[in-house]
Amino acid sequence: MASPVASAALKSRIRRPSMLKKLCRPEDMLHHFPNGAYIGWSGFTGVGYPKKMPTFLADHVEKNSLQGQLRYSLFVGASSGAETENRWAGLDMIERRSPHQVGKSIAKGINDGRINFFDKHLSMFPSDLVYGYYTKDKPSNSLDVTVVEASCIKEDGSIVPGASVGATPELVQMADKIIIEVNTAIPNFEGLHDITMTDLPPRRKPYLVMEVEDRIGSTSIPIDPEKVVGVIESDYQDVTAPNTPADDGSKAIAGHLIEFLEHEVTHGRLPKNLLPIQSGIGNIANAVIGGLSEVNFWNLKVWTEVIQDTFLDLFDSGRLDFATATSIRFSPDGFKRFYDNWEQYQNKLLLRSQQVSNSPEIIRRLGVIGMNTPVEVDIYAHANSTCVMGSRMLNGLGGSADFLRNSKYSIMHTPSTRPTKTDPHGVSCIVPMCTHVDQTEHDLDVIVTETGLADVRGLSPKERARVIIDKCAHDDYKPILKGYFEKAEFECLRKGMGHEPHLLFNSFDMHKALQEEGSMKKIKGW
Amino acid sequence: MASPVASAALKSRIRRPSMLKKLCRPEDMLHHFPNGAYIGWSGFTGVGYPKKMPTFLADHVEKNSLQGQLRYSLFVGASSGAETENRWAGLDMIERRSPHQVGKSIAKGINDGRINFFDKHLSMFPSDLVYGYYTKDKPSNSLDVTVVEASCIKEDGSIVPGASVGATPELVQMADKIIIEVNTAIPNFEGLHDITMTDLPPRRKPYLVMEVEDRIGSTSIPIDPEKVVGVIESDYQDVTAPNTPADDGSKAIAGHLIEFLEHEVTHGRLPKNLLPIQSGIGNIANAVIGGLSEVNFWNLKVWTEVIQDTFLDLFDSGRLDFATATSIRFSPDGFKRFYDNWEQYQNKLLLRSQQVSNSPEIIRRLGVIGMNTPVEVDIYAHANSTCVMGSRMLNGLGGSADFLRNSKYSIMHTPSTRPTKTDPHGVSCIVPMCTHVDQTEHDLDVIVTETGLADVRGLSPKERARVIIDKCAHDDYKPILKGYFEKAEFECLRKGMGHEPHLLFNSFDMHKALQEEGSMKKIKGW
Repeated sequence: MASPVASAALKSRIRRPSMLKKLCRPEDMLHHFPNGAYIGWSGFTGVGYPKKMPTFLADHVEKNSLQGQLRYSLFVGASSGAETENRWAGLDMIERRSPHQVGKSIAKGINDGRINFFDKHLSMFPSDLVYGYYTKDKPSNSLDVTVVEASCIKEDGSIVPGASVGATPELVQMADKIIIEVNTAIPNFEGLHDITMTDLPPRRKPYLVMEVEDRIGSTSIPIDPEKVVGVIESDYQDVTAPNTPADDGSKAIAGHLIEFLEHEVTHGRLPKNLLPIQSGIGNIANAVIGGLSEVNFWNLKVWTEVIQDTFLDLFDSGRLDFATATSIRFSPDGFKRFYDNWEQYQNKLLLRSQQVSNSPEIIRRLGVIGMNTPVEVDIYAHANSTCVMGSRMLNGLGGSADFLRNSKYSIMHTPSTRPTKTDPHGVSCIVPMCTHVDQTEHDLDVIVTETGLADVRGLSPKERARVIIDKCAHDDYKPILKGYFEKAEFECLRKGMGHEPHLLFNSFDMHKALQEEGSMKKIKGW
Repeated sequence: MASPVASAALKSRIRRPSMLKKLCRPEDMLHHFPNGAYIGWSGFTGVGYPKKMPTFLADHVEKNSLQGQLRYSLFVGASSGAETENRWAGLDMIERRSPHQVGKSIAKGINDGRINFFDKHLSMFPSDLVYGYYTKDKPSNSLDVTVVEASCIKEDGSIVPGASVGATPELVQMADKIIIEVNTAIPNFEGLHDITMTDLPPRRKPYLVMEVEDRIGSTSIPIDPEKVVGVIESDYQDVTAPNTPADDGSKAIAGHLIEFLEHEVTHGRLPKNLLPIQSGIGNIANAVIGGLSEVNFWNLKVWTEVIQDTFLDLFDSGRLDFATATSIRFSPDGFKRFYDNWEQYQNKLLLRSQQVSNSPEIIRRLGVIGMNTPVEVDIYAHANSTCVMGSRMLNGLGGSADFLRNSKYSIMHTPSTRPTKTDPHGVSCIVPMCTHVDQTEHDLDVIVTETGLADVRGLSPKERARVIIDKCAHDDYKPILKGYFEKAEFECLRKGMGHEPHLLFNSFDMHKALQEEGSMKKIKGW
């Protein structure tokens, strides 16, 4: 079969002639994907991921009933598109996955024991990859093939990513072979990225970022042209979901948080334009950023992992001067708005690798205000970000601990309860002891729910417990949690072990009531 | 009473005349210590702490039966000398303490509920202090008085610390009043320190340390002379304990570790002279550093928190080129050896503030090999560094998480068991679930006990559990832990929550057997 003919659109995006000669169809690349291969994909939070090659491989497995016979170790900066990664999981094509994922089928594969998943700090995943930690049992100590989406290939063969950088620099650095998907359905993102590669110690240098807008790298990812085995045209945009609107609970949380930030400004602990803001994904994050669009903070800056729709509102309100992240994950409407107003936003945005966006070094230096949503928080300010009931994996750690360990303000926001089938408040997000700990008591400064804000800075564990129960627990759970704490305090002080009192053998009784009776409220007492 | 007359020795150490005029006796300073005062002390791991003023205040309380009537909030970089801090705790003089402590009386005060203690990452304590987080409820937002030991006061009024830097720069920066104890019983340490102060964001700069020996600061701590209310002569050395010798178990651990490092060199993941080494305190740490003195690694460098006696052996073996830390905590014999051979060691050693020695930025950049000893590790590679049975505080987090989160190699070493009164192996240090989590599964690369080494890099939780039980658990506990894991795996996979299998409501049953029957072995089965 002859090679495909390049369209004019594609030619304008591939500025190196030797790369145009590598133009091919996904089926030509099939032989690079034997069972057991170690594969890298570009992509982060469901944008900038390769589309054609993964879809072809999924079709190939489906058509030929090869489920369970083509299984791969798959490494992507964070989550990929549902129509690729999640479909692969449904077709039993994933043997191993790291460091983050989103999708029902992939979560099911992990929790059913078919997929070996490990979640890792997103700042650390790319460096551990380059250390050779994830390929140490392979003779080559490298990835077999990395598939990357590009919005353009430059004259020198380097690639301009699309809407995310993620771990792409390191995934191509560690690859034996590279397949490039040039996406002509998205604009050429040239100039929107600040790319740095990863050196090995002892030859590493500081990240000389001292302001959110500082550039320290190049605008494209260098590629070894001899590693490129094929170039494929890709023809549709990132498939993203609509934005999650803020509800009353999340607006109340945002209100408490904004009041707290104003209080910190008043007391001289924050400048008037705050410090760089980090905000996650979801309705609370949207409410917080939305709330900032309506109050009297100006000249704001954002240092975060993912930029969402509400940041466009914050730009448009005139309050946000600059934002940097490793991905822009807009809704379909948000992408349209962004592309339609490209000129207006392009000089206020910068995308960096996840090793830089989530760098402890930079987060600490800049004094970031970090905000995140957990599964549950305990009365001593540990938080569970990953495993429901200590065992069931949701999406993974992500960058939560990169930010919450290193931010000047480490803030956990959560509704005080979540519903179960039988009880609209069947789960308390404030518990006696977290069933899995991802953020420790040594990391968090502030816990906030719709009921109030607990400022735990400088408090001992018992002081923390009192303020967290008082400010953050739902009224239905206040007496239950107080009951736990008071009995634990009495018992532990009596035994001379009262620093952080627990009823160790009953610490998960609320979870037991939830599992057995459908609501944590059904606990029989301590 | 007339001011004391300065000895010739003291005059040679106080090179600023105005400071000589402030020479006084501890009793002259009593009025600066009202009940409820916020106090800072220099010191770290029991060296470089002030001696005369704390001892005078303790004598004052004891003589006048003022126990419980003079209580202070006490901030010291890490632990202080037993004859000061621990005596204060015994006299009920400590209301609040952070971020680390050592001593029976102070641990008792914390666990009996008399002392509000909070432990914080040692890298973060000084910056949170300067953020005003620990003094936010005081009108002045500052420490009332900081007492620092100096080995010399320079012409410009700046002070040269003794055997530790710790948080002294920030403690003097945040103090309303400063009392300096000039210690003439130790040498003038001038030139041995590299001092940096703390800026507030958004005006912070990188720490431009790219090699262990890089200097980025000055040789002394700047002091505002108008804040100095008194200068006291101090006349005895740091009171330290003898070195803990390595036993057979710790030598076996060191053997496994050295074999692992050799393996990493062979596979090209470590240079021949390794990468900068961090090592803690205790017999395992001593065995590891001692072991390195006998094998074929040369041109080693050390980036650590505390330098101990065994590092002198490593210097003397010709294998160690340079070491830097925030304190040198030698035994009495070690200090004699160090002082007697000052010329030989002084150009190979550098002491920095704990914010720099424990800086995530630098630890990550340098690719440190970090090693630490926990209370317990669980089968999924979480670790408890602080609270026995989840509640009883030992010493605090220290720098464990600064290093274990950010090192290139994050290594936990522990004996596989510890004795109880009735059973020489009554406690397994490998447990199903840690009763308190300070280091998460996302942080650790290697677990090692005298029975073997588990390399968990790139493994999913269930893979980790198998290798940790197999390599690290004591033979007596292997079947018990396997029993837990296999039942948990079966139950959780059945329920579609098998990512990290737990029997949540029985996860602490080994601890229950320990508490009720004196040995974890007495568990009746899962």
